[in-house]
Amino acid sequence: MFVVPVLLAVVIGVEAAENLVLRGISCTLFEIEGHLMPKFFDPDMSEHVLEHVKSKGVRVMTGNSVEKFNSDSEGNVSSFVSGGKDYECQLVILATGVRPNVQLAKDARIIIGPTGGIKIDRRMETFIRNVFAAGGCVESVNLVTGKPCWYPLGTTANKQGRVAGANIAGGEKAFEGVVGTSITKVFDITAGRTGLSEREAKEAGFNPASVTVTTSVNAAYYPGEGSITLKLIADSGRKILLGAQAVGDTSVDKVIDTVAAALTGKLSIPALTNIDLAYSPPYSSVLGTVVKAAGVLEEKLGL
Amino acid sequence: MFVVPVLLAVVIGVEAAENLVLRGISCTLFEIEGHLMPKFFDPDMSEHVLEHVKSKGVRVMTGNSVEKFNSDSEGNVSSFVSGGKDYECQLVILATGVRPNVQLAKDARIIIGPTGGIKIDRRMETFIRNVFAAGGCVESVNLVTGKPCWYPLGTTANKQGRVAGANIAGGEKAFEGVVGTSITKVFDITAGRTGLSEREAKEAGFNPASVTVTTSVNAAYYPGEGSITLKLIADSGRKILLGAQAVGDTSVDKVIDTVAAALTGKLSIPALTNIDLAYSPPYSSVLGTVVKAAGVLEEKLGL
Repeated sequence: MFVVPVLLAVVIGVEAAENLVLRGISCTLFEIEGHLMPKFFDPDMSEHVLEHVKSKGVRVMTGNSVEKFNSDSEGNVSSFVSGGKDYECQLVILATGVRPNVQLAKDARIIIGPTGGIKIDRRMETFIRNVFAAGGCVESVNLVTGKPCWYPLGTTANKQGRVAGANIAGGEKAFEGVVGTSITKVFDITAGRTGLSEREAKEAGFNPASVTVTTSVNAAYYPGEGSITLKLIADSGRKILLGAQAVGDTSVDKVIDTVAAALTGKLSIPALTNIDLAYSPPYSSVLGTVVKAAGVLEEKLGL
Repeated sequence: MFVVPVLLAVVIGVEAAENLVLRGISCTLFEIEGHLMPKFFDPDMSEHVLEHVKSKGVRVMTGNSVEKFNSDSEGNVSSFVSGGKDYECQLVILATGVRPNVQLAKDARIIIGPTGGIKIDRRMETFIRNVFAAGGCVESVNLVTGKPCWYPLGTTANKQGRVAGANIAGGEKAFEGVVGTSITKVFDITAGRTGLSEREAKEAGFNPASVTVTTSVNAAYYPGEGSITLKLIADSGRKILLGAQAVGDTSVDKVIDTVAAALTGKLSIPALTNIDLAYSPPYSSVLGTVVKAAGVLEEKLGL
């Protein structure tokens, strides 16, 4: 039996576990925080991912740090120590998260922002004139909080690169920011999020309230239905939408993209409850997942 | 051989044709206008539906009206006449569209709007106090034009009914309007739209410009990819987004819902080009269909 601990499992750790298991390799995920993917999901939504991952034969140890690795006589890893206990293993994958690589910028005395990423304006220009930066090394504006944030993602890097390129070539383009959208396949289900998690909402000074709705993806009578759980997070004082998290068999990408667009357009919660989304039985229930959840949220906030 | 003409084929006609063919029944669609689903799709996008429907063995006659039906000695339909020509048939399905049933309202002297639907305010109250109306009999506000419109759909009726019910019970809810979203399964593909078609844009006094992008739904290297064609329509003067039409193997509902939310939030075209949608190879190309098309539109409009 192989035991493969993946440490501080962010999304990459869970993705690695999936692919190891699909190759028939026994695998254990070690996560130092109390729940899987803590940067992306609140504990309640992470629980759905945990259950699914466990059902696929992955062992998961949360709240566990790794203190030491041991090697055999040939210098290969043979075991590691966690909580004073020894675990045998043949392979270790470290998925401990990422940090912006800003050394070059620091050496050039380019301003680094509070998130650790390079500070840029909306034209992607650093605070040294004619020096532009884009991608995982720069910070961005969170359009929900209006504050700097750092979500290093390929799709964001691509868009920022286009804006930087256009401006370098004499154009006048702007990258206004992100809403913190992210999605990942976990075996047979999908987990996605946009906006702020409850933790991020609290850190940003909001007073989060949330609702969670589990519903069939299509009209209930339509063959081949799947199920989705959607959590919507709002500020209970200002009664504005702050974020969403979804876990489901299918349509998570649709639901997250719809809420991401709603957050970008600063839609009110009543507007989201009545939003005119595409309905036909093969694609949606008559109200649809987003509208259903928004209606429950509206009720909870007394709107 | 059965020949089943479906007349004035709106969405229902195409759906009926699909189900007849799947039961092994030969079928011909007659459409009085020049292209299929003329109320929903511009001719160029309708062409994709036409090709697919034809590839499934449906005969399609556009620009054809039916002048006469003939019956056999038992009173069953035996043939019909179109363009002076006789067509043998055993079954006729008339899908000639719908009109609001407002007779009861007219009898009660309730005001009917310019679209033929009952005029209501945002509380779903008619212009006779304490009489509320909702569903296919009422008109709505088109949030893109700000003008009255009539799109009788189950999902809209459901939302309006909730608003009317809440207000009747002493609440204070509003239904602000729709953006004209609709979706339909056509055999193995999906066709969807939101906002205004080019025809509707011209009728509303806009000067439409459009771009059409065909792209793979997922990262091109990801297994099981499908393809989608997305048309975005904008006003070339005001440079605002007016609508979208999409035909594809999959993810049409996602793309249409995203644009519907963008239209509801009145996102600018540059904002749509940089919108933070969910990217991971199983779900999207690195930019995604909406962002790709918005980028081409931005370029075309010189933004």
